[in-house]
Amino acid sequence: MMHCASIVSAPSYAFPFLSGSASTTPTAISLTKRSWKPPPSMAKGPVRATVSIEKETPEANRPETFLRGVDEAQSSTSVRARFEKMIREAQDTVCSALEAADGGAQFKEDVWSRPGGGGGISRVLQDGAVWEKAGVNVSVVYGVMPPDAYRAAKGVPTDQKPGPVPFFAAGISSVLHPKNPFAPTLHFNYRYFETDAPKDAPGAPRQWWFGGGTDLTPAYIFEEDVKHFHSIQKQACDKFEPTFYPRFKKWCDDYFYIKHRGERRGLGGIFFDDLNDYDQEMLLSFATECANSVIPAYLPIIEKRKDLPFNDHQKAWQQLRRGRYVEFNLVYDRGTTFGLKTGGRIESILVSLPLTARWEYDHVRFWNLLYFKQVRC
Amino acid sequence: MMHCASIVSAPSYAFPFLSGSASTTPTAISLTKRSWKPPPSMAKGPVRATVSIEKETPEANRPETFLRGVDEAQSSTSVRARFEKMIREAQDTVCSALEAADGGAQFKEDVWSRPGGGGGISRVLQDGAVWEKAGVNVSVVYGVMPPDAYRAAKGVPTDQKPGPVPFFAAGISSVLHPKNPFAPTLHFNYRYFETDAPKDAPGAPRQWWFGGGTDLTPAYIFEEDVKHFHSIQKQACDKFEPTFYPRFKKWCDDYFYIKHRGERRGLGGIFFDDLNDYDQEMLLSFATECANSVIPAYLPIIEKRKDLPFNDHQKAWQQLRRGRYVEFNLVYDRGTTFGLKTGGRIESILVSLPLTARWEYDHVRFWNLLYFKQVRC
Repeated sequence: MMHCASIVSAPSYAFPFLSGSASTTPTAISLTKRSWKPPPSMAKGPVRATVSIEKETPEANRPETFLRGVDEAQSSTSVRARFEKMIREAQDTVCSALEAADGGAQFKEDVWSRPGGGGGISRVLQDGAVWEKAGVNVSVVYGVMPPDAYRAAKGVPTDQKPGPVPFFAAGISSVLHPKNPFAPTLHFNYRYFETDAPKDAPGAPRQWWFGGGTDLTPAYIFEEDVKHFHSIQKQACDKFEPTFYPRFKKWCDDYFYIKHRGERRGLGGIFFDDLNDYDQEMLLSFATECANSVIPAYLPIIEKRKDLPFNDHQKAWQQLRRGRYVEFNLVYDRGTTFGLKTGGRIESILVSLPLTARWEYDHVRFWNLLYFKQVRC
Repeated sequence: MMHCASIVSAPSYAFPFLSGSASTTPTAISLTKRSWKPPPSMAKGPVRATVSIEKETPEANRPETFLRGVDEAQSSTSVRARFEKMIREAQDTVCSALEAADGGAQFKEDVWSRPGGGGGISRVLQDGAVWEKAGVNVSVVYGVMPPDAYRAAKGVPTDQKPGPVPFFAAGISSVLHPKNPFAPTLHFNYRYFETDAPKDAPGAPRQWWFGGGTDLTPAYIFEEDVKHFHSIQKQACDKFEPTFYPRFKKWCDDYFYIKHRGERRGLGGIFFDDLNDYDQEMLLSFATECANSVIPAYLPIIEKRKDLPFNDHQKAWQQLRRGRYVEFNLVYDRGTTFGLKTGGRIESILVSLPLTARWEYDHVRFWNLLYFKQVRC
């Protein structure tokens, strides 16, 4: 698909058909869809959805902006432009801080764009000293939402049937999986959406909304860590609206819930979506404040836990917790399901998955015996 | 939830709050939903769906049948009863053969039932000499399908809105993940469905259909293995209808397709669903023949590959392929999504997930360079 030049740097295990240790030399299996034709049952939503966003193309350099010309013209004033500027600055700040904390590993960058406008910068740090896998991505997307993706993004009840909706979306999204089982996983994501009038209702008003959140998923609780993390979230919220923290904390607890397990994904933080019932400028400042709070909320915890000694059992427990993370992200996470349905850049969307995960049959019988301590600020 | 007595056999890592190697003793995180209340957006389909099947309760012994009394009465004649008998015999045969091939490890059995009728037998072999994780489950379910689960089971287009539908489902389902990267993963599943008249259309006719398939997912291709596997599938099909093998082979290729990757899950086999356009007796015999073909199709391959030497790179490649398996099962597999939505026994549903899996950022760039050899019988 991309970077074919980098074949020269491909590790040998990328070419299983070269492996010689088998008594018969195996050939590699097909992973291309060249010969594949969708059956009637697949010719519905998902397939249509995947063509609603153009295929991305790699870029050698970072452009000044990913906005289309018409948006770029008002780049100093429009919320679209100012949000893109904010998330790109946040990406730089977060990545620099993580590299410094990791003390050696560097983020690998992929820049991509789409012919009709939009693009993104994916940065991934893999197999570092502190982080097993850390992704910090920004993207700007111009697309047309199929009804099901529109529901996925807006949480509209499934009995509503909007027509295809042109949309603009810009966001920063990050998941950080440390190696040490006592060091928690962090997720944060801040995004801004605008939809044009639905194609079948040209008179309808353009909509905009903000979404996002920052949440912590440890395998082990250190109360002081959780208190610190939540207190920073509360500080950020309280600068804008006293109801934000309690409301967005509960929203986070409710959202990051693995329904089929009856388990929460982690220990929460803040989460909000479809937020448009406040002044747009205020919400832009709020999202900015939240993004700027990620490092002070997370790095002090990492510094304390990254070097704790651990044993194989504690690592295995972390791996089981990572399995739950995978279950939530692939089955429930709106951003992931939205991305998969709209044909977004898969490697960027699924960078949220841990490097490794584990599923043991019926471990739940012990899991459910674990007790809980609610942490309040 | 169940087997609290078995806490005495819990491995130490099941109790992270007992771990002493951390400088501060951490407490375990909440994994219970006791204090959780669903937000308005969750009070829809999924939550209603989870109550459409009763919670299962563990049983000490295997009952003669899981059928309700009314069905049991005609147990010698009804298709429901004869299908249950067939899948339970298949479970015994397959598990015995796998234990013999593994040469040491034994299947652990969990029997469960539901107060209103139905139940199942889950058998899992974990960390054997040959298989990393092998699950062979049978279940009999009396439930009420919510519209979305009904769509998941029948593949009805999402624009249809049937009301809640009482249903009967019986099936055998199995996924076998070997340790050796040259030994392929096998999946097979044979099921029989009956729906009563939809609650909102009492006059509507009762429906029945068969579904199932057997498919192979290697990390490396040995042509002779794939040919052998497909030839056994073809033999089973050809005994009933010459169009079955080509039709069900294509259906399998189309079904086990990871849309967001543009990749097939594996190298196919046979797959069919919603099959009711043939004589019911013929289809019952066909499903029986397919179930009886699993061992002759799979075990000769395992015998040839289970002891091949392999290196770390080949193991890592297998782990990446397992990650794709997880993606397909959690995002697309009908049986899995149906089970998650209807509140089935989660540990039985997700036993299909491998013991361990791996996701490396952008490995796809190498992945897509792998070439393909179509194998025909």
